Amino acid sequence: MSIEHSPDDIAPFAVPMGDPAGIGPEIIAKAWNVREAQGLPPFFAVGDRRAIEKVWTGPIATISSPDEARAQFGSALPCLQLDMGGVITPGAPDVDGAQCALHALEIGIGLAKSGTAAGLVTAPVGKTQLYAVGFTHPGQTEFIAERCGIARDNAVMMLAGPTLRVVPVTVHIPFREIGTSLSIELIRTRAKVTAKGLQRNFGIQHPRIAVAGLNPHGGESGNLGREEIDIIGPAVRSLREEGYDITGPHSPDAMFHAPVRSGYDAALCMYHDQALIPLKALHFDDGVNMTLGLPIVRTSPDHGTAFGIAGRNIASPGAMIAAIRMAEHAARHRAAMAPDGCAEAAPEPGAG
Amino acid sequence: MSIEHSPDDIAPFAVPMGDPAGIGPEIIAKAWNVREAQGLPPFFAVGDRRAIEKVWTGPIATISSPDEARAQFGSALPCLQLDMGGVITPGAPDVDGAQCALHALEIGIGLAKSGTAAGLVTAPVGKTQLYAVGFTHPGQTEFIAERCGIARDNAVMMLAGPTLRVVPVTVHIPFREIGTSLSIELIRTRAKVTAKGLQRNFGIQHPRIAVAGLNPHGGESGNLGREEIDIIGPAVRSLREEGYDITGPHSPDAMFHAPVRSGYDAALCMYHDQALIPLKALHFDDGVNMTLGLPIVRTSPDHGTAFGIAGRNIASPGAMIAAIRMAEHAARHRAAMAPDGCAEAAPEPGAG
Repeated sequence: MSIEHSPDDIAPFAVPMGDPAGIGPEIIAKAWNVREAQGLPPFFAVGDRRAIEKVWTGPIATISSPDEARAQFGSALPCLQLDMGGVITPGAPDVDGAQCALHALEIGIGLAKSGTAAGLVTAPVGKTQLYAVGFTHPGQTEFIAERCGIARDNAVMMLAGPTLRVVPVTVHIPFREIGTSLSIELIRTRAKVTAKGLQRNFGIQHPRIAVAGLNPHGGESGNLGREEIDIIGPAVRSLREEGYDITGPHSPDAMFHAPVRSGYDAALCMYHDQALIPLKALHFDDGVNMTLGLPIVRTSPDHGTAFGIAGRNIASPGAMIAAIRMAEHAARHRAAMAPDGCAEAAPEPGAG
Repeated sequence: MSIEHSPDDIAPFAVPMGDPAGIGPEIIAKAWNVREAQGLPPFFAVGDRRAIEKVWTGPIATISSPDEARAQFGSALPCLQLDMGGVITPGAPDVDGAQCALHALEIGIGLAKSGTAAGLVTAPVGKTQLYAVGFTHPGQTEFIAERCGIARDNAVMMLAGPTLRVVPVTVHIPFREIGTSLSIELIRTRAKVTAKGLQRNFGIQHPRIAVAGLNPHGGESGNLGREEIDIIGPAVRSLREEGYDITGPHSPDAMFHAPVRSGYDAALCMYHDQALIPLKALHFDDGVNMTLGLPIVRTSPDHGTAFGIAGRNIASPGAMIAAIRMAEHAARHRAAMAPDGCAEAAPEPGAG
């Protein structure tokens, strides 16, 4: 599917600043700096502009609603202003900052849900700080899913770089719980959301999914573990029977080199590091976290607040730029494909 | 340390052919083809020359002892001839071929132990076929270790590519047994053999070892698993106290991108795929398997027999070439460093 690139046919993107003491404000400003060279769509920061002013001397335009952003975007970084209390010190997070980050996230979600923003690109938050102000979700993703009315299990993390997309079936659990957490149904659910997400966000009509095994060499016919035989294999077969273009289980160490990567659109991995190790080895500086299964477009740079380097003007905006660009592509694919705005959580077979 | 490159100061390398029906004969011949362009040291095949003749039309010189290899190497591929029974058909392994592969391996080990060969570069064998002729070891590595009088646990697999070396602490065990197989003592043993191996085989006087965690994000201070706190951390600290230049446990997904890789000489990984996934994602075509802890030099290309493509002249010799070159470097470093030929299994602190 071809996607149009007229700058005016899409709403601006909301970019909640994340923790104002992290590198969020700096990488948002740096992304705006290269908006023309990188061909970025209009976007606006959500948060307290003082956080940006602490780390950047460029022009900022305070806006009161997203529709003002496009007019301002060419000459200044638009900022939907939230006044937070206290003093902002890069590298020194506090509860005022956490409160502001949460507020900005909430507003960004609302704007994306209403369509006033074309999507949501979130800068990193500090979980420790958020927990101190009463945040009870494991991360921003689960919070966003809840606000969108999507069950936590149906909001699926995809990490995407220029030559590899990965989706972990299990995510933030202890290593020893991985084996017992896998089930045919969980793999089926993740695969379906992945297929639908590739269609809606990447315009891939017939997505090809490669499923990793769990054990060394994929278990060697059961000699090195039985999950491939008992769980992963049956899940893959049942999905193939439903029409999905899905293969596996593959030997986990033999599916991430270039010739094999080019044969699938996403790798479905059994655990966090099986997905994140190859993704970050290959695409550390431009990896994007995209949440599949939501009614809204949501991406974020695949890194944290980096409090240790905040305020030193050395943070790379590469992943933020990639996240904004990926959000734009997703919004355009969705606009071209699914005018009814239905959520990805209702899966359909990938191969028509 | 500088290493000399005079072609005549080192014995030739023994290259047992592996399964004659696999791609071993083809990649050995192809490596000989590029011996000058690649600057490869003299080597000789060990096996039945008929296996090479099935897949290659170049010159072969039958030799009866390694010292004939150097004189022949410039004009023909030297082959220490072993007559096997039966018919050789590329892609169709049988018991005669397995017997010949085992015989060739045994001879190669003997020549390397005696110093008649400078080291051993093994082509791939078919385990199923070997088991059928009474082979009882998990793989060639354990067999070689036993013949060298080295306990199995002290023969350590390192996978090495141009920008990354990895050593898995646990190797071919089911995924669910990984957590319970780790111990402070096992990690210490592997780390010591790794440090000594980097000194002897790579000439790195003060090896730097980075140790991976086990859990996502390295366990997040115990919230996502305790192995980093209870096992890996104490092992690393005790080794540091003994003078080793060793760091960790690191978040497993944040230690394999280029800037981090350049900060260590080897990554000590907790399990097979934690080591093999990044190594193969980055260096699939030129990864070398080197066995540390042996009195002899032993390398092999990091791939299998590939029966499916044997005889079709499409197998890449890249990893075999890299394995021969790495064996040469290791032999030269050892010659320059440890004239007494003592095994690596007796470890000494890496940082002098």
